[in-house]
Amino acid sequence: MTRSYNFSAGPGALPLEVLEEASKGLIEFTKGAGIQEISHRSPAFLEIRDSILSNLRQLMDIPKNYKILLCQGGATLQFTMVPMNLLKPNKKCDYLETGIWAEKAGEHARKIGDVNIIASSKGEKYTYIPKIWNIRPDTSYIHLTSNNTVYGTQIHEFPKNSNIPIVCDMSSDILSRSVDVSQFGLIYAGAQKNLGPSGVVVVIIREDLLDLVDDKTPDLLQYKKYIEYDSLYNTPPTFSFYVLDLVLKWVKNKGGVNYFENLNAEKAHLIYKEIDRSGFYKGSVVGEDRSLMNIVFHLPNKELTDRFVKEAEENNLVNLAGYRSVGGIRVSTYNAVTLEACKALSQFMRDFENKVG
Amino acid sequence: MTRSYNFSAGPGALPLEVLEEASKGLIEFTKGAGIQEISHRSPAFLEIRDSILSNLRQLMDIPKNYKILLCQGGATLQFTMVPMNLLKPNKKCDYLETGIWAEKAGEHARKIGDVNIIASSKGEKYTYIPKIWNIRPDTSYIHLTSNNTVYGTQIHEFPKNSNIPIVCDMSSDILSRSVDVSQFGLIYAGAQKNLGPSGVVVVIIREDLLDLVDDKTPDLLQYKKYIEYDSLYNTPPTFSFYVLDLVLKWVKNKGGVNYFENLNAEKAHLIYKEIDRSGFYKGSVVGEDRSLMNIVFHLPNKELTDRFVKEAEENNLVNLAGYRSVGGIRVSTYNAVTLEACKALSQFMRDFENKVG
Repeated sequence: MTRSYNFSAGPGALPLEVLEEASKGLIEFTKGAGIQEISHRSPAFLEIRDSILSNLRQLMDIPKNYKILLCQGGATLQFTMVPMNLLKPNKKCDYLETGIWAEKAGEHARKIGDVNIIASSKGEKYTYIPKIWNIRPDTSYIHLTSNNTVYGTQIHEFPKNSNIPIVCDMSSDILSRSVDVSQFGLIYAGAQKNLGPSGVVVVIIREDLLDLVDDKTPDLLQYKKYIEYDSLYNTPPTFSFYVLDLVLKWVKNKGGVNYFENLNAEKAHLIYKEIDRSGFYKGSVVGEDRSLMNIVFHLPNKELTDRFVKEAEENNLVNLAGYRSVGGIRVSTYNAVTLEACKALSQFMRDFENKVG
Repeated sequence: MTRSYNFSAGPGALPLEVLEEASKGLIEFTKGAGIQEISHRSPAFLEIRDSILSNLRQLMDIPKNYKILLCQGGATLQFTMVPMNLLKPNKKCDYLETGIWAEKAGEHARKIGDVNIIASSKGEKYTYIPKIWNIRPDTSYIHLTSNNTVYGTQIHEFPKNSNIPIVCDMSSDILSRSVDVSQFGLIYAGAQKNLGPSGVVVVIIREDLLDLVDDKTPDLLQYKKYIEYDSLYNTPPTFSFYVLDLVLKWVKNKGGVNYFENLNAEKAHLIYKEIDRSGFYKGSVVGEDRSLMNIVFHLPNKELTDRFVKEAEENNLVNLAGYRSVGGIRVSTYNAVTLEACKALSQFMRDFENKVG
């Protein structure tokens, strides 16, 4: 059995150690039953839930006045839950538009509140992060998307000491670098990129924001119900919880967020170096806003792009095609993508260029 | 490695063949990547989605004017989505109260509409299914819970030719017996009992009911959006889809719903026979409404009940303790619980009674 070097944008690669452990747990986890076959209220499962919450708190150094909860419905349901839970009576909320997902977050919020776009790089095909924002002083919150998976930009500095709560979709870079949680009112992240499998979403919320919600809101859409029931209001996707727990333990064993921050910089550098060296590969975003998670570049034409993807696959380097509306190549280098994989890819980039360039 | 006879009420037992296949797919499913590590838009994953939909249609003989969709959030989110999507302007909806889950379905609906309880057996501790219903002629739908997991009752006959749409939560008995889908307006079922793993919910809806929803409703809470995007509006719990697909193929290979209907009757009979033979074990529901999925009975006292659970476990028979608020013993005999498991349990019941009775 040969595992590939997998650069999938999401659901993304997982550590082999985690998968091997999980494949055993599927058959027998406790009392001769697999992990999917036990009650979510059983002691063995409660241990998983508790371990997730305490490891997340430790890894991200989450302050005591923040709660952690585990939801379903992907980050997309958060596009609705955030305004449902955080809007003040004036219903104003401000969004920074830095890519397709940021755009969608705003669109979903428009069904709930009065959305203002504080800045957008849409006109320039999302090739940079706008730095000047037109924030309304009475907005309920400011929504950011920390990393743009499709175009390959990333916010490298977040507002400090904001009086207005900063809400951030960190789906594609959570745990990939250290962030100061106290700068945010709420952080959410679908797990399927840096945290584990799809099906579970992590939400980190400052306590004082829990009580703004209208009690007429359905229970499963109220953050405070998740706190009340310790993220087990109803049966969660138990296997997703389990794999998330294994991934967090793996992150911790490897050396935590700092370890991955350094490793991810090194990995991304290997690829950007090839782009910067070469006139053949063209990076599509401005240098200072480059993502360390999703590296997007273009070849001279579509024929060469297709050939690159095909020959890469023959060399065991898979899932490199760019997002459908963008084209080109996208290299996703989430935590579980190894340095070895990135070395192999950078070598392939040189070889391919030498052959056809 | 010894697998137990697992009578868990949910998440329930899964077929060993399915788990063995899934444990391979976790490591390598396609192109050297595991099933959790590929895009939900990749051809390999779309094949899984399509296979689920076509196998469900075939196994349940779902008519052409019904759509099938796959949601997240458990059956609990359906408690909210059903009224959000099906209420007519008068907002009236009628609920049959036959257990804790039926009760909760009504409670959640109360945040959205005007709920009327058409009958309830709550006063008699849910030991039977009320047969006389006070239906409002202008109600938008009638909500039923086909099987009561906690108390162990089951609706054995559904209304025929109802002008009012019948909505049914079949979470705990879908695919365990044949039903005529055309008798229903909408069927929903959390997967974690008879369909596979937790995290995914199957919804079967008659086409004419799709357009009642208010377009202000968030996209992910509108059934018609799931149709429009073929159940891939956003990243679903991909592993749950995968296991669901494997379970459906397993059901089909075994002989479909008819095979399980007969097998389940035989399995349940083995346990009910012990209850009926003995004064020692006391069934808690009226005979005609007995569930073939969850068999609930009591021993003379709590001490003996605890001893039963403990000694059963020593004999490899696990997860038999009753629901916290009910006590006693609960034997869940979902599709994946084998005849062999039920034979072993009925033998244990005789042995235990002979020893202590």
